[in-house]
Amino acid sequence: MTLKTREDYLAGLRKLKPNIYKFGELITDVTVHPATKRTVESHARNFDASHDQELATLYTTNSKFTGEKIHRWNSMMQSSDDLIANMNMKRQNYRRTGTCSGGVCVGWNAQNVMWAVTQDMDAEYGTNYQARLKDWILMAQAEGLVVAGALTDAKGDRSLKPSQQEDLDLNLRIKEVKDDGIIIQGAKLMICGVAASQEIFLMPGGAYKEPDQAFALACVVPRDIEGLTIVEATRPSDRRDLEDTADGEVPSTGITQGLLLFEDVFVPNERVFMCGEFAYTGKVIQFFTANYRACIGACVAGQGDVMIGASVLMARANGLSTKTFMQKFVDMSMNNQITYGLGVGACAVGFQHPSGSFVADPLTAHTNKVMVATLPYETKRLTQEIGGGMVETGCMPSYQDFTNPQYGDLLHKYYKAGSVSAETRYKSARLAEWLSIGGGVPGCMHGGGSPDGAKLMVRFTTPFEEYAEYAKALMGIEESVPEPRR
Amino acid sequence: MTLKTREDYLAGLRKLKPNIYKFGELITDVTVHPATKRTVESHARNFDASHDQELATLYTTNSKFTGEKIHRWNSMMQSSDDLIANMNMKRQNYRRTGTCSGGVCVGWNAQNVMWAVTQDMDAEYGTNYQARLKDWILMAQAEGLVVAGALTDAKGDRSLKPSQQEDLDLNLRIKEVKDDGIIIQGAKLMICGVAASQEIFLMPGGAYKEPDQAFALACVVPRDIEGLTIVEATRPSDRRDLEDTADGEVPSTGITQGLLLFEDVFVPNERVFMCGEFAYTGKVIQFFTANYRACIGACVAGQGDVMIGASVLMARANGLSTKTFMQKFVDMSMNNQITYGLGVGACAVGFQHPSGSFVADPLTAHTNKVMVATLPYETKRLTQEIGGGMVETGCMPSYQDFTNPQYGDLLHKYYKAGSVSAETRYKSARLAEWLSIGGGVPGCMHGGGSPDGAKLMVRFTTPFEEYAEYAKALMGIEESVPEPRR
Amino acid sequence: MTLKTREDYLAGLRKLKPNIYKFGELITDVTVHPATKRTVESHARNFDASHDQELATLYTTNSKFTGEKIHRWNSMMQSSDDLIANMNMKRQNYRRTGTCSGGVCVGWNAQNVMWAVTQDMDAEYGTNYQARLKDWILMAQAEGLVVAGALTDAKGDRSLKPSQQEDLDLNLRIKEVKDDGIIIQGAKLMICGVAASQEIFLMPGGAYKEPDQAFALACVVPRDIEGLTIVEATRPSDRRDLEDTADGEVPSTGITQGLLLFEDVFVPNERVFMCGEFAYTGKVIQFFTANYRACIGACVAGQGDVMIGASVLMARANGLSTKTFMQKFVDMSMNNQITYGLGVGACAVGFQHPSGSFVADPLTAHTNKVMVATLPYETKRLTQEIGGGMVETGCMPSYQDFTNPQYGDLLHKYYKAGSVSAETRYKSARLAEWLSIGGGVPGCMHGGGSPDGAKLMVRFTTPFEEYAEYAKALMGIEESVPEPRR
Amino acid sequence: MTLKTREDYLAGLRKLKPNIYKFGELITDVTVHPATKRTVESHARNFDASHDQELATLYTTNSKFTGEKIHRWNSMMQSSDDLIANMNMKRQNYRRTGTCSGGVCVGWNAQNVMWAVTQDMDAEYGTNYQARLKDWILMAQAEGLVVAGALTDAKGDRSLKPSQQEDLDLNLRIKEVKDDGIIIQGAKLMICGVAASQEIFLMPGGAYKEPDQAFALACVVPRDIEGLTIVEATRPSDRRDLEDTADGEVPSTGITQGLLLFEDVFVPNERVFMCGEFAYTGKVIQFFTANYRACIGACVAGQGDVMIGASVLMARANGLSTKTFMQKFVDMSMNNQITYGLGVGACAVGFQHPSGSFVADPLTAHTNKVMVATLPYETKRLTQEIGGGMVETGCMPSYQDFTNPQYGDLLHKYYKAGSVSAETRYKSARLAEWLSIGGGVPGCMHGGGSPDGAKLMVRFTTPFEEYAEYAKALMGIEESVPEPRR
Repeated sequence: MTLKTREDYLAGLRKLKPNIYKFGELITDVTVHPATKRTVESHARNFDASHDQELATLYTTNSKFTGEKIHRWNSMMQSSDDLIANMNMKRQNYRRTGTCSGGVCVGWNAQNVMWAVTQDMDAEYGTNYQARLKDWILMAQAEGLVVAGALTDAKGDRSLKPSQQEDLDLNLRIKEVKDDGIIIQGAKLMICGVAASQEIFLMPGGAYKEPDQAFALACVVPRDIEGLTIVEATRPSDRRDLEDTADGEVPSTGITQGLLLFEDVFVPNERVFMCGEFAYTGKVIQFFTANYRACIGACVAGQGDVMIGASVLMARANGLSTKTFMQKFVDMSMNNQITYGLGVGACAVGFQHPSGSFVADPLTAHTNKVMVATLPYETKRLTQEIGGGMVETGCMPSYQDFTNPQYGDLLHKYYKAGSVSAETRYKSARLAEWLSIGGGVPGCMHGGGSPDGAKLMVRFTTPFEEYAEYAKALMGIEESVPEPRR
Repeated sequence: MTLKTREDYLAGLRKLKPNIYKFGELITDVTVHPATKRTVESHARNFDASHDQELATLYTTNSKFTGEKIHRWNSMMQSSDDLIANMNMKRQNYRRTGTCSGGVCVGWNAQNVMWAVTQDMDAEYGTNYQARLKDWILMAQAEGLVVAGALTDAKGDRSLKPSQQEDLDLNLRIKEVKDDGIIIQGAKLMICGVAASQEIFLMPGGAYKEPDQAFALACVVPRDIEGLTIVEATRPSDRRDLEDTADGEVPSTGITQGLLLFEDVFVPNERVFMCGEFAYTGKVIQFFTANYRACIGACVAGQGDVMIGASVLMARANGLSTKTFMQKFVDMSMNNQITYGLGVGACAVGFQHPSGSFVADPLTAHTNKVMVATLPYETKRLTQEIGGGMVETGCMPSYQDFTNPQYGDLLHKYYKAGSVSAETRYKSARLAEWLSIGGGVPGCMHGGGSPDGAKLMVRFTTPFEEYAEYAKALMGIEESVPEPRR
Repeated sequence: MTLKTREDYLAGLRKLKPNIYKFGELITDVTVHPATKRTVESHARNFDASHDQELATLYTTNSKFTGEKIHRWNSMMQSSDDLIANMNMKRQNYRRTGTCSGGVCVGWNAQNVMWAVTQDMDAEYGTNYQARLKDWILMAQAEGLVVAGALTDAKGDRSLKPSQQEDLDLNLRIKEVKDDGIIIQGAKLMICGVAASQEIFLMPGGAYKEPDQAFALACVVPRDIEGLTIVEATRPSDRRDLEDTADGEVPSTGITQGLLLFEDVFVPNERVFMCGEFAYTGKVIQFFTANYRACIGACVAGQGDVMIGASVLMARANGLSTKTFMQKFVDMSMNNQITYGLGVGACAVGFQHPSGSFVADPLTAHTNKVMVATLPYETKRLTQEIGGGMVETGCMPSYQDFTNPQYGDLLHKYYKAGSVSAETRYKSARLAEWLSIGGGVPGCMHGGGSPDGAKLMVRFTTPFEEYAEYAKALMGIEESVPEPRR
Repeated sequence: MTLKTREDYLAGLRKLKPNIYKFGELITDVTVHPATKRTVESHARNFDASHDQELATLYTTNSKFTGEKIHRWNSMMQSSDDLIANMNMKRQNYRRTGTCSGGVCVGWNAQNVMWAVTQDMDAEYGTNYQARLKDWILMAQAEGLVVAGALTDAKGDRSLKPSQQEDLDLNLRIKEVKDDGIIIQGAKLMICGVAASQEIFLMPGGAYKEPDQAFALACVVPRDIEGLTIVEATRPSDRRDLEDTADGEVPSTGITQGLLLFEDVFVPNERVFMCGEFAYTGKVIQFFTANYRACIGACVAGQGDVMIGASVLMARANGLSTKTFMQKFVDMSMNNQITYGLGVGACAVGFQHPSGSFVADPLTAHTNKVMVATLPYETKRLTQEIGGGMVETGCMPSYQDFTNPQYGDLLHKYYKAGSVSAETRYKSARLAEWLSIGGGVPGCMHGGGSPDGAKLMVRFTTPFEEYAEYAKALMGIEESVPEPRR
């Protein structure tokens, strides 16, 4: 088996049937369309890294099944070191692309979580989900697949459960169970990196009880499966992507999010890993979020590293020493290290499921999610503070102005500060802007669930009564101290 | 004299000679061009308010010179109540437009600051600047002028003073003094609301010493003065403004920033209020920033009020009660009230200059600037947290998708949550996005100077040695406690 | 009428019948007992200030009734300037004593609030409370009385209302209404400055409804009224006060809190200002907390000023320049100015009750209370950070060690750093410790109600629906956006 | 070899010659003197734990030298798991004692750091330090020694290096090198847990260069070594310890700090591990602080757990449900988990020295120190906020008041709230007070160096230039972007 290359990956994408739309139009080739080529490039750089001597140890590992060298993003994670390696790869990825590469993240996590849950389900129900999953994983490892993951249902009226909605499609559901597979229908919203992915791992969007059995569903589908329509979401600055000028925010990399619309999609049995076993949906969510919220600390840290870098450039391009802002730089670095180090801590004190899959410590991981939803915002604010007004509101003339024959020269003259060219100053400001208020904002606050959801988990995993007992023991309090009666 | 109306104002703008460019092209009518019509509308709403029974007390006052009713933004501010009225008008303005209206703010502040400084200069140098200024103010009051203000020079190499720059134009300068006026040359960058203004008040960009005498310059010029080229800045989301679809962020209002390029511009004497009196540039900066940084607390509070409103809509449109997020709403409200109330406090304990002009307390005002550069960022973060993933990254399909004949219906189906229409949910998300990561971000962090500059002023206005004496007195310490020798 | 002096005040205290206990023992003379003499000294300094040329404008004013010069703390506050003058006096007071002087604060506020509420009650019920109050105020002004104020009831089981408690005494109550006065019984807990006060203003502890009529009670009593027992509270460091050595934390000033135990106390009618009018208890609380929570911003600012002073001394005594810590000093100064300036802002945008009494703006005042409950804690943390380990845990040898014949010299040798004496270093550390972790901590977090109570008021005074309407107007949303049905 | 017990430990302490003073008086038996018995009890509980079935895995391990079971605090730490086990033991220790137990912490860290550095010194200089150290470690393991550690010199004038001080004793120094040992003189200040320790590990207080060779000194001495005088520091609340009443803050446990005064102390060669090798002092500091600042995250987390516990009790004793404060409890739990998890993360991505000693990752560890110096302060503030006024200023009557025959009953009556006894309410408040403003404050902000020192290390370990290169690569910037010339 040879490790797939950038070229293999791009060829793979081109072979897929076009089913992705943006601005109401079908994208025929995601590798060249200006709306998608940047997220594809971000993902392609992973393949480069796997073949790069310096980076290969980060981006590759050996298959626990075959022993062969594989891309790390197709591997099983069965120790804290495996989870930490996941984090290290992601931090590096953000440094090399400036943003998220969802196709080498969510599907990977999903495959490991489902490895654990399928084993539990098989034990209880006599199903053979784990064997199906293993076959798919072996294929994914051999093909070096890029796999997005999808959790978020449309949800409809949130005060009602999926089965209580007027329109059952508001959560992705099993419409029909056939002998050789299942028919699914509904939507998944806000999925990251779909346009750059070859397959999509579908997971249940919540912890369901019996009435919602039809929504207890996990499977993996090719991105171009029959009946699936994908709509790429718009965001404030994405019209810039359509221009091939210096106003394009960052020249090559990027990330996009999309929506999946499933109409009578048939998924063959060998790709189905949960089909109605509602009792296990909670475990899927629990394991998935624990790992996701631990590891995402590396993502925002890596993007924060680039914010530091952009701010260093910006300070100098403004004619100022980085020493002027050293306290801010130190704060930025600490913000990055907190989410990274706390995520690593969650991995280090995690636990191993009997299947071998390793799960990060929930209390630490969910605490980290709250940090991920706050600290990077302060880092962005500091990026804007260091960069000055140019960065804060992106207040710069456009490319067409800089090249205007009448006053373009004047703009160059007035935008040069210190020893660095106006162009570098302009590019540095664009990068800082892109990271802090533009298309580089990766959506880490709600990705993998909201910070309020994380706080709820912190509440449930903190042993408050045990802590009260420590306090009682210290003071020699012997009476019972119950919650007050109402 | 009759109070000018929206129609008068728009007619006034249309009479100006076109000299504003965006994306490399001349804008012939700022009142209808999609790139500028929103900021014009924001300013026009001030005229509506002046004629609105409920709002007139906020938006109008009587001229201290003539006793006649005038727009408040042309008035003299000679008491703490006048400054607080300025704040109340601005907070209301943000609530009615969602963002900044620089043309009823900076020029107004400038006229009052220069009223004080011209009196001091006239007393020392026997000049007649104040009389000139009074004539202009009377005209501005009569015409109900909208006046932008410009402080920020290009600056070039910041380690060098203006007169030390290789290119003297890098700070706006007096190129030549003639009998009947002056020739100025250079640039002012990042000026707010210029496209909606009829005149521009130019102020010195720093506190200068003798070698930089040529940069000690204050005057007011018509927006279309001969030799002035204006370039509107671009920002991440402004391509949306060019589309007349629902993707346009907010339908009607907005704000833009621009750059002013002065080439051999002749300003007649009657519009010149400082011409080389470098010794008074410091006072201009000091008075201007004190008032600006006190009052800007109302601006960000008013925008914060709209963020609360958008978040209320967003929560409900997501199908959730506002109670779910009450702690966040309370935090948002407190953030707003801190910058507002602290600004009011700065006004209330300010001082009156012998000229009558009232100046906010520097220590309180500069402290407020630091709050203005931090708290609204947390309010934005909360707006994104309450709004969910739709708001955080603006992750929604475009207008063209929602109206796509093939799958547009599906999008409507999946975006409806609870009892509110998909369209209202979509619009609420757009507003929240526009306020927190889009074109509604008004640039308050660096507007009127950086937070670091404000901290420097806090340092210089805090009586540290006096405080040390209190400590010594409390402990009965009698020995001197000096800084350690190096 | 002559303005009372320190001597008059001390003589007044000595004339009172001893009824204050600490550590189980009766204090016969509060002006000399080591447990109370420091708080008395703090209050006595107010009289000094009233007679000090520089400070007299802060500490005195003219009676609105008689026109005569009186101590400010006996005055009526009938404009925003009066409230701001209250704040300025308090900030100065903290600078001169290092902590709270409750006897020139709470009673003063109470008299002004009751001035308004008695007028309303008299209008509705035909009572003559305001006339009674006026008589008392005139006497208090003539005598220059120091008046504590008491709100906090014991409360008992908080899930039950006062009238539902098993023991009715758990809230201070009217036990009997007689022709010439009332009998009251119960307790008030945690009252500040009682030991230094001549009278105590009693106010209702909550907003009561009809069943709790017996608790709707306001009156003012001499501190030594028959049937009242006062117990001074202990706090971690107060044993030090009992030693007359350098370990005594600050040599002269201080503050204490106490508890009031009322057993069948008869209050004559002329001192009763509310007697069962439950419908007005809410207004008392509302006006009292608005003024209290605005003005307390000056208190913590003044103490923060001393923390800055102590930290300046401490840095230098450690042999370090204040520049080393300048960012921290600036942060401390801003923290002080925020609570001060925001309080001033609340006063400036307050409203005048028809009685003349001026009330601070609730939303701003309650927001300030939350700041008062957070920012000073950060200032204390910075005091400890600048001061070093000596301050953080007060880790120093005791006075007895420093004077130990065997090793005292060694301690002096090792505690000298730089050019300042070991003694000054030691005293500076004691002051910093006293302010941040010792007896100088004034209890501002819960004084005047908890921050959570303040947040509740922020919630109720923020016009959320109005803000939602602004958002709708901006987006042209016309449909109703109600709370979701459950 | 049998594992030493509490009794062995107490007997060992009693055998030591009295040389500890407090309040100017010699303490003859630290195990019973009220000033020291609480810190002794805290340490004794470690021995209990080692013999407790549930806790033994936390508190014991096997010697890497002999394979025998030893107390964990005498062990070698040679993997990230060993460091994490250190953290877990400490978190548990804080839960069981409420505060720090310095004698099972600093000496332990020192022995492991010196294991690494002695190997490096031996390799370069041919010394036999590591062999000496090994002998001592084997003895310490056999005896189950409790070993304090001392870094902080008196320092004197901080602008001068040790060798430049007028008085050379201001830093602990080698006064004379003899054939069989060294004579040392000077002082170490602010050492934790000395009164409960059997030996003291002395380490260099800074990174020294050649002129300061005489201060490059590491050794371990018995606590009662000839020529050593120890003075226990005082702190605000420690007079309470001297009373054996309920006012004593916590009944049994505690921590103290002390000062070491060395006068001509002879240390035999076999206990000397560094003697003038100044070039290695930096490494000692670097390794020591990395491990210390990683692991201290567990200490403050453990104390924070008790703060949660005390606050749970306090809320209920006040008659309120913990749900009322749930957001605060969640914040407290997250604060604890951040310092714990980030410390674990620092351990997990640390590195192994060739000697086997494991060192935490510096960037992460120093970042954690800054968190340790901030987050617990917020947790304390929340403890005071939840607890109410009783906790904030410890505002309660004293034991003598509660037992006063005249009014003691009244106090019990008024302090009961809800279903819990007044005594439990009182004790819970005492605990909360002790943890947040009393003797339980462990001094973690400056322990192991200041947060500013940690920020300096963050600065030096963050690869700013590498981050700038990532930014350049993303934007295709090819020109050099240097610091501006001055």
